[in-house]
Parts: sequence; C-alpha cells; structure tokens
Amino acid sequence: MKTALNADIASALDALASTSIKHVFLVACGGSLSIMHPGKYFLDRHSDALTSDVYNGDEFVCRDPRHLNANALVILCSQTGTTKETVRAAQHAKSNGAITIGMTLDSASPLAQAVDYVVNYQASYTTGVPIDAAESNYGVLYMLLAGVVRLADKIDHVPSLLKSLSHLQPAIDKAHAQFADMFEQYAHRFYDKNVIYTTASGADYGAAYSFSICVLMEMQWINSQAIHANEFFHGPFEVVDENACFISFVGLDETRRLEERTVEFLKRYGSAENIMVLDAKTLDLSGIDAAFQGYLVPLIFFDTLWKFAYKLAALRDQPMLLARRYMKKLTDY
Amino acid sequence: MKTALNADIASALDALASTSIKHVFLVACGGSLSIMHPGKYFLDRHSDALTSDVYNGDEFVCRDPRHLNANALVILCSQTGTTKETVRAAQHAKSNGAITIGMTLDSASPLAQAVDYVVNYQASYTTGVPIDAAESNYGVLYMLLAGVVRLADKIDHVPSLLKSLSHLQPAIDKAHAQFADMFEQYAHRFYDKNVIYTTASGADYGAAYSFSICVLMEMQWINSQAIHANEFFHGPFEVVDENACFISFVGLDETRRLEERTVEFLKRYGSAENIMVLDAKTLDLSGIDAAFQGYLVPLIFFDTLWKFAYKLAALRDQPMLLARRYMKKLTDY
Repeated sequence: MKTALNADIASALDALASTSIKHVFLVACGGSLSIMHPGKYFLDRHSDALTSDVYNGDEFVCRDPRHLNANALVILCSQTGTTKETVRAAQHAKSNGAITIGMTLDSASPLAQAVDYVVNYQASYTTGVPIDAAESNYGVLYMLLAGVVRLADKIDHVPSLLKSLSHLQPAIDKAHAQFADMFEQYAHRFYDKNVIYTTASGADYGAAYSFSICVLMEMQWINSQAIHANEFFHGPFEVVDENACFISFVGLDETRRLEERTVEFLKRYGSAENIMVLDAKTLDLSGIDAAFQGYLVPLIFFDTLWKFAYKLAALRDQPMLLARRYMKKLTDY
Repeated sequence: MKTALNADIASALDALASTSIKHVFLVACGGSLSIMHPGKYFLDRHSDALTSDVYNGDEFVCRDPRHLNANALVILCSQTGTTKETVRAAQHAKSNGAITIGMTLDSASPLAQAVDYVVNYQASYTTGVPIDAAESNYGVLYMLLAGVVRLADKIDHVPSLLKSLSHLQPAIDKAHAQFADMFEQYAHRFYDKNVIYTTASGADYGAAYSFSICVLMEMQWINSQAIHANEFFHGPFEVVDENACFISFVGLDETRRLEERTVEFLKRYGSAENIMVLDAKTLDLSGIDAAFQGYLVPLIFFDTLWKFAYKLAALRDQPMLLARRYMKKLTDY
C-alpha cells in the first residue's frame, strides 16, 4: 500500500509551500498533453484557490498568456524529456518568473535541465518493462496536483488518492482480461477501416484524444478524431451511418451521462458491430475510492486499449512502434 | 464608422461595473462554441485581472467548476437561443450566483429568458439577409470582451476594436473575390474526398473547428477534424501522404509560425493539389488595426469558406442546409 507521496513530488511541494501560486498551466504536446485534460478536470472540481489552463507547448510560448508570471506554476511533461516545444515552454515560463515542474522518464533530459523541479514517472511503453500504474504519468500528475491543492486549498485528498493508486494496477490487470474478447472481436471488424472515431467527455477526453492521435493516426495511419461526447450532437453525428466506426468511452465522472447519450445514439443510428463501448461500470475497481474512480478510469481504458491497438496492428501487418514515416525519422521539419 | 458599443452591450457592461468579476466562462455548443476559443485568446493576451475557461454547455453543467460562483461572469451563445444544453448551462450558472450574458439572434428565445443580460448579434446564415460582419457573433463577442477588459483592467481597447470592426466587411468582401479562383479549383479536387482535415492554432483554431464539424461533417457528411497546428506534429502528421486533403489556416496572430510550419510540412510530404492554404498575409485588411488583425482573420476565413462549402455541396449534389439526417429532424435523442 502506497502511504506517502514520491520523494521528488514531496520535495517539489516543499519548495512550493513558500510561494503564492494562483494559476496552474499544464503544458505538453501530443500524448503527454492528453493527461493534462483530466488534470484540469481535477483542479476545476477541487480547487477554489487555483485557476488553470491546458496548452500545447508551442501554443503556450506564442500565446504568452498574461497570467504567466511569478504567481504561476507551470507543470510540463515529456516522456523522453526531449520534446523541443515543451523544453522551450519550460524556458519561456522560467524567464517569465513562473515556477516550473517537469515530468519525465529521464532526469538528465533537456526538460529536466530546463525546469526548477523534476518529477519522474514510469512508462512500460518505452521500456517494455511492466510498471505499477501508480507511477505512470496519470498517477504522478494526480499526486502532484493533489499535493498542490493541499497547499493552496488546505484540503487533503492525498491519502484517498494514494490508497486508490495502490489498487490501480490490479484493476488494470482485471480490465485486460475482461476486455480481451471484445478487443479480439472488434479488431477483426476494425482493422481494415479508413476512419475510426473516439468519443468521450470530462476526465476521459484526454485518453480518447491520445488514442486517436498517437495510436490510430500516428502508429496505424488510420484517420481519427476524438469527438467530445456532447459536441458530437452539434455537427459530427451527421457522419454516422451503418458503416461509421466508433470507440466510445463511458467513464465514471460527473459527465458520464454525456457519454451514455452518445452511445445510445450510436447504437440506434449506427451499427452495433461498428461501435466498441468501454463502459467503466463493468470494471472491478475494488479498493479505488469512489472519489477517484472517475479520474483513474481513463488510464485503465487507455492502458487496455494498447492491447486492442496491437491486435489491429497485427491484422494490418503494420507493427506498432515501428510504423512511423516521419516521427523520429525526419530531423528537419 | 462605428464609434460606440451597441446599446445592449453597453447596458450589460454598465450592470457589470458594480460587480467584482474574477473569472469568465465562455460557454456554448458546436459552431457557437467555436467563437469562444478566439475570445479566450483575447482574454489570455489582454487581461491581468481575469482568468477564463471555454466549455461545451453540457460539460460545463456536469463538470460544475468551483470557480463558478458570484465572482464569475458566464457568457453564453446560441444562434436560435434554443440550444437545450446552453439554456441549461445559463440556468445552472445563475443558480450558482454567477452573472450571465446570453448572445443570441432572438431576444425572446429560451436562452434570452434564462440570462441576466441579452446581447443580440446578426447572422446571414439563418436569415439569408446580408449583414455587416461587425454585428456578427465574432464582432459582438469581441466588443463584449473588450468592454469587460476595460472594466476589469482599466485598459481601453474599445476604440481600436470599433474602428477595426468598421473595416471588417469590406475586407471580407475583398477576400471573397480573392479566394474565388482557389475555391473553384479546390472544390473540384475535394468534392469526392472522404476525409478533409483543417489545421490552425491560436485565434484561428475555433474557425477551423467550426468548418470541420458544422460544415464538412454536419452538412456534407465528410469525415473531418480540426487539428491544432503544433499538435499535428505529435501524431496526426503520420496520416499525411499524397492523397491526404487539408485546409490550412495561416493567420496573423502570435501563433502564425505554428501554422506556417504545418503548411511547409504538408507541401513537402503531401501533394500541393490536396493542400488548400488560406494565408491572411495575402488579404487586404485596410483600416483594421494591427492589434486586431489576428482576431478578425478567422472570421474572414470562415465567412469566405462558406462559398467554398457551397461549391463542394453543388458538386456533391448535397444541398448545404438541407443535408442533415438527424439535426433538426429527430426530436428524441
């Protein structure tokens, strides 16, 4: 059972204790940006003292918001710590007097060198070594934000979070087994499709976004978009017909009814065999406090969906991490 | 020449003068939500006193952010004023003690009845009658926000904005003529495509989003997505090949270099005949102050792109506003 925040998180929080943070910027690119959306959802729902924004690294630098000043905390994330836009965003934030915390796998990376405080996390994605999901990007970001809220709002969600994170990996392992048959079935239905959308809202949106842009588009060259579950009804739903393919997230946060409504529509006007629904109500979340289930479900969905992606990749004969024509191959764009 | 704010805007601002607004929520759905993104860009760059968030109406209600309180101003928008989620969002905001302003075409609509202050705008979209773009949703939102910033920050951008808005319609008329040949050419190239992406950043992003979801998806049933110009490089660009179709916005705000970089990549690895670029540097913006060009360009792009959409629709034999199978046809979803 996890009973204390990681040492690097505690140390960053100690340093923050003597500052007066009013605004939090959550800044990254692509997959690392995707985790910032549920981070903001947590702040929106739990902090009276802090306002927050989520920005792509390069957008953040050029937009240069006026609230980027000595009262701002900027939390950045880059897996390798080498994402140029995110490193520049850290440098820009520091030069504007803000406090910077960099989340990365590599404590010696350019991002780590650019920020005031480094916070490490783990990923099986790059290393291939199994991790405890408590130490993943989601887990570490929530620990950091719960610590920041404890400082700023004097409300302590940390014990409940730590207990919940301790039960996350078993919940993920069970979800893998539970979704296995569905993934097998839908991989055969989806592998030769040209367009696959995802739908989600609230804390789930980032995971849908990441699966669309980093997995389907980047690694499988399948056209995709993460459609917000309510925005769906204000334009996008018109593309739905019996051939339209969707992966729909139905989580456990306060926006669940938005996601349920989308699925109801899809099942009625689309074709059930083209609508793959991940419903968190079917998961065994033993030990995860109700207050944190909505925040941890998107990680469970995303982690398990990797298995689905590998099945797709095998059927498409397009190996997952190798199938890139531009990323990490070109150097001059 | 426009020399004063519209009476209903001035009246709403008078009422705000005696309040202490700290946070602005910009709330709507679909096309009306799209204008809120450049609105936030304006606040981010011009207000020290105000923080802000942009939310879909139903997300806003369920997420129920803690900053939604008596110090919040909630600006909502719905063309007809009948969008259920936006009306509910107004009611929710009021019941939380926030001040509400509703932008709509119809002063007697449910949204108008739900808010504290009604601000009218005009749209040729629904009426078919030509309007002065100064009185469009973009024009009115900027007037409102410039007024709010004048109250909160004691900096007056209103005269420059009013002068710039006075020169907007002529700039749009010239842009129509200027883009006409390009639209004709690309309509013939794009009309039978299955997927057309848009790319944009900063103040342009909302217009790209709206063209993707409300025009291409909703009215033409073409798969689409607005890809943020830098996020493009963190996944989505892997779908680019010689057949991939893009409509790329290159505006005049501080994020212009992000949009330029996307276009450079697309021209290099895609096929020029499938990349339609709207570059604001080619426009005649006489009379629009440099400080407001970046904010008004997305409206110019969006307004002119309607002509492109009608050309596509004609070639696809799918009439624009009639071509919906669900929206305004079903009542029970």
